[in-house]
Amino acid sequence: MSAAATVYRGESVENTHTAHVAVVDTEGRLLHAFGDPSRMTLARSAAKPAQALAVLETGALERFGFDDADLALMCASHNSEPRHIERVKAMLAKAHATETDLRCGGHPPLSDAVWKDWIRRDFTPTGVCSNCSGKHAGMLAGAQALGAAIADYHLPDHPLQVRVKQTMAEVCDLPGDGVQWATDGCNLPTPAFPLDRLARLFVKIAAGTRPDNTPRSAALARIYRAMTTYPELVAGEHRFCTALMRAFEGELVGKVGADASYAIGVRESGSRPALGIAVKVEDGNTAVLYAIVTDVLDQLGIGNAAQREKLSAYRNPTMRNTMGIETGRLVASVPLERA
Amino acid sequence: MSAAATVYRGESVENTHTAHVAVVDTEGRLLHAFGDPSRMTLARSAAKPAQALAVLETGALERFGFDDADLALMCASHNSEPRHIERVKAMLAKAHATETDLRCGGHPPLSDAVWKDWIRRDFTPTGVCSNCSGKHAGMLAGAQALGAAIADYHLPDHPLQVRVKQTMAEVCDLPGDGVQWATDGCNLPTPAFPLDRLARLFVKIAAGTRPDNTPRSAALARIYRAMTTYPELVAGEHRFCTALMRAFEGELVGKVGADASYAIGVRESGSRPALGIAVKVEDGNTAVLYAIVTDVLDQLGIGNAAQREKLSAYRNPTMRNTMGIETGRLVASVPLERA
Repeated sequence: MSAAATVYRGESVENTHTAHVAVVDTEGRLLHAFGDPSRMTLARSAAKPAQALAVLETGALERFGFDDADLALMCASHNSEPRHIERVKAMLAKAHATETDLRCGGHPPLSDAVWKDWIRRDFTPTGVCSNCSGKHAGMLAGAQALGAAIADYHLPDHPLQVRVKQTMAEVCDLPGDGVQWATDGCNLPTPAFPLDRLARLFVKIAAGTRPDNTPRSAALARIYRAMTTYPELVAGEHRFCTALMRAFEGELVGKVGADASYAIGVRESGSRPALGIAVKVEDGNTAVLYAIVTDVLDQLGIGNAAQREKLSAYRNPTMRNTMGIETGRLVASVPLERA
Repeated sequence: MSAAATVYRGESVENTHTAHVAVVDTEGRLLHAFGDPSRMTLARSAAKPAQALAVLETGALERFGFDDADLALMCASHNSEPRHIERVKAMLAKAHATETDLRCGGHPPLSDAVWKDWIRRDFTPTGVCSNCSGKHAGMLAGAQALGAAIADYHLPDHPLQVRVKQTMAEVCDLPGDGVQWATDGCNLPTPAFPLDRLARLFVKIAAGTRPDNTPRSAALARIYRAMTTYPELVAGEHRFCTALMRAFEGELVGKVGADASYAIGVRESGSRPALGIAVKVEDGNTAVLYAIVTDVLDQLGIGNAAQREKLSAYRNPTMRNTMGIETGRLVASVPLERA
């Protein structure tokens, strides 16, 4: 398989990376590909919108008074910034739950600035600080909306997770046994499915605003609106997801998954129909992932040059050493083939 | 190319990694290989012993009273622990130089514990804290031993770096133009050469103790002795190089390079002649590198089971999530082929 990205130091090749890309239309048809577009992929947090959909469809948001900002945080891999943690605490209160009900644990945050702050304060993170705590707070609400116990809401056989599994298979257009399940970093079941199915999920989210609304497409449209209205809640400062959605001003929704998966849903615009895009870097390198994602957006001509320019630090990251000298470059190239 | 390592989450494949291995004898002959044993490789800090050799051969160690512990630190990618920084400061004093002469910059240290300490103390690292500061202190001594100015000792045309280039080509058995040069993270010229040449360098270091001593092989033997006597100066606490050399109690010398290269020189033992081993992970993943290196040592039967057991946390790293639940495993497998 040809390299999707090469890191040069001077003129020598330091590292190479392989990757897979799938681009689909609203019917789920593969339009463009690079590498293996059906690579079985652990979508990790890129699948959060489908987990949020399952919670949304329990009626939990109405029942517990969650708003669209809360919904955005249910789809988030947040930075554990104060605004994220405070909102999760408020969601727990709305859902008549407490932090002790959470079945995720604390971890070093995704934000370096937050990490430094915690170390300076000798702060030990707890479950509410998990980058997935919004999803977990939503699930505590969802479990109650289903009339199920909140204990063990994270286990594969809990009624809420059974619902998530069914929803996941449906939005991926797969039979139930077409999705593999493992355990995520935050302790929830996490799905694996062919990469193009992740693209299908996101084109459905982006296409949900069309007039042929079913309850599900309305729910997916609500997720699109929530994530694009509150991009700072989906990730945070100095994070790609937030920068991407800010740059494209509502034209697309994007979400990263750990170990370098990414999914984008692009709205219909003029003559271009809605698109779903999914990317997986074979070795899990996230800097390479962002360079590839921006290359794919360039190739597909999404947005305008000024918007894409806002992502240039991800497209062509400058490699400098400890004295500020430029030492090399990352070249991402995933020439898409028409499927 | 078949995967050298696979990371599983549950039973699903999360990531795969490719890698290259070269094993050579004292004549430089390729004995075993995996992947491309002649992959042009930026050895980065795995080449430090050759840089230290060039300094040693200027007579700088005798002239400035550097001992074997100082020599070990010249070969180090150290943790920036107090014992490392204090020794570098002492080396600078011995060489009549000051920290302002260093042309490397500070950076977050390789040790998490040191990093947390610096953040708590609001400490901004300077050049003496660089993981490469021992090498730089040695070069300031080497420049003077050559009668050259210490200013710009880091530039490719400085007499010391010209000497380093010549030495590097010689120990790799290459013509001068057989080595490519780029700029390292610490601002020094850094070489790229075929991976098996890195193995040649290390078998020479390990074989230098033989009775047919030339001045160079005596110098290489001194490097072997320094690194294996002071493994805690070559890296530090919770670091693979230190753990490896401690476990094998003088039987081998090992050194990591950034972006996942590794080199080992194994001493002659009984009927087994000395060996040189070099590994490069194509995508630069260091956890994968250590798993592969330990797999290679297993296959070659280096040391005994108790020694190899001390590295089991690197061989089979346990993957646990934020709640302490085991989520997956890293399986490294590089079946060596006889060349």
